[in-house]
Amino acid sequence: MTSLPDHVDIRDVSLRDGLQIEDPIPLSAKLDLLAAIAATGVREMEATAFVSPSKVPALADAAELAAELDNFGDIEFSALVASANGARRAVAAKLRSIEYVVSAADGHSHANVGRSSAEATGQIADIVAIAHDSDVTVEVIIATAWDCPFDGPTAPQRVVDIVTAAIAAGVDRLAIADTIGTATPRRVSELIALVRSSTGDIPLGAHFHNTRGTGLASAYAAVSSGVTRLDASVGGLGGCPFAPGASGNIALEDLIYLLRDSGIHVDVDLQAAIAAARIAQDAVGHELPSALLRAGDRILG
Amino acid sequence: MTSLPDHVDIRDVSLRDGLQIEDPIPLSAKLDLLAAIAATGVREMEATAFVSPSKVPALADAAELAAELDNFGDIEFSALVASANGARRAVAAKLRSIEYVVSAADGHSHANVGRSSAEATGQIADIVAIAHDSDVTVEVIIATAWDCPFDGPTAPQRVVDIVTAAIAAGVDRLAIADTIGTATPRRVSELIALVRSSTGDIPLGAHFHNTRGTGLASAYAAVSSGVTRLDASVGGLGGCPFAPGASGNIALEDLIYLLRDSGIHVDVDLQAAIAAARIAQDAVGHELPSALLRAGDRILG
Repeated sequence: MTSLPDHVDIRDVSLRDGLQIEDPIPLSAKLDLLAAIAATGVREMEATAFVSPSKVPALADAAELAAELDNFGDIEFSALVASANGARRAVAAKLRSIEYVVSAADGHSHANVGRSSAEATGQIADIVAIAHDSDVTVEVIIATAWDCPFDGPTAPQRVVDIVTAAIAAGVDRLAIADTIGTATPRRVSELIALVRSSTGDIPLGAHFHNTRGTGLASAYAAVSSGVTRLDASVGGLGGCPFAPGASGNIALEDLIYLLRDSGIHVDVDLQAAIAAARIAQDAVGHELPSALLRAGDRILG
Repeated sequence: MTSLPDHVDIRDVSLRDGLQIEDPIPLSAKLDLLAAIAATGVREMEATAFVSPSKVPALADAAELAAELDNFGDIEFSALVASANGARRAVAAKLRSIEYVVSAADGHSHANVGRSSAEATGQIADIVAIAHDSDVTVEVIIATAWDCPFDGPTAPQRVVDIVTAAIAAGVDRLAIADTIGTATPRRVSELIALVRSSTGDIPLGAHFHNTRGTGLASAYAAVSSGVTRLDASVGGLGGCPFAPGASGNIALEDLIYLLRDSGIHVDVDLQAAIAAARIAQDAVGHELPSALLRAGDRILG
């Protein structure tokens, strides 16, 4: 192992990536879940997405949800967008941070947003301008960074090219996403080493799904490679509706367990995360894949 | 990451650890499953256990199963034992290798075999004598090497002391087992570094459960720390009936996926392992936790 960081920042994405593939749940249920997640101590949450309500009906209440976020003053909320129009809606809804997703693979990019990867990359500057005009920060999330469900393996240079374009366009943060949960530790270490040679002092996050059981192994490889920002969802909710075979994010509570037992500090309480996962499970009405939700913590010494 | 090995030897434990917690299935179903696992190319299988039929009814047919193993000539079969009497039965049944399990923690040792850890350790020499008299090899598996479901964390020195006693008693191989699936990469790396300082040239294996979602991450940490022998079960079957909260072994097919994408060679075919996992799932009649069984392989480049 290389040296591990002392601290990792975790962004909870339950309300966006977690819910987008589910049948819509009422706003009141989202707010109950949000309150439970807020009680974990997590400092950042991706609260919703400003995308097409017809394509992602579960997030059609984005503006209504955004109007409630002032009630949770300690948390930095963000929203995902897929276009300049979405960015304008997010800014109008008073979000202070947005994530703009760009697929590195054309197959997924067309399925997700109806544009090629290059066309989506070409919009970064416009979105940054819209956001920065209102002092809103922008993170570019590079989806299908390792594999595309349509095109197969993603050439690492495609990821680096998007990183370079995003930095030239003035983004504030970057993340690379294993959209369909195919990454494994060695491929994670290799891509992160390559990407970090281009990111300079722009913060780099990573986003993993546990589709092939390797999500936590990949997350650990990422932090071992110098990444100090990770996404997770309570219960392991989640999946991309436009990526066949996609399944849940890494579970917040499982990630906390792994990091704690690695001597890495996080701001999230494990038992509160398990409690929030239980609320998420009740809200969506089916069993979630989280391991800690079933097994609980180990006996500590 | 430290350097990875070129090759890892995998022992399939589906028919022993995998089935011991299940309702008994007919011998014919076991033989069908054995044939499917043999078709993966795996070179070693733990076929059964010679233990109390009343305590582990699923493995009460150990002698009958052993009588069928000559039909699978390419595979090195072994059986688990928990006493000198079990070792005698395994030798009489013509097994060529046995695993003797010793719990490092007293709580689990009493629950599992009704003896303290020291008492179980004290029997190693007798079991080695019984086995070696018939040219049978002996591996000592140290259970609850990280945590005990009753006693909490296991002091690493307890594991080292058993290693030392086992080597003094003449064992042929050693393994350390995360019986209740609590291990995480950093704790794995630390314990393996400590244990390897005592094992000399005795081969050391590792055995993980995925109870808290960290099984593959721990397995990767083990191979990164120099371990080249791992146990797995098709579909992620398994669990210890005498360890509350225990759940499945790491799934053979998920492990193969991880190792292949790490550039590590194994003798097991991934698609054949998925096919065997499906047969295992049908045999036990409930869904198994394997990820690859649901998601399948990624598109290769």
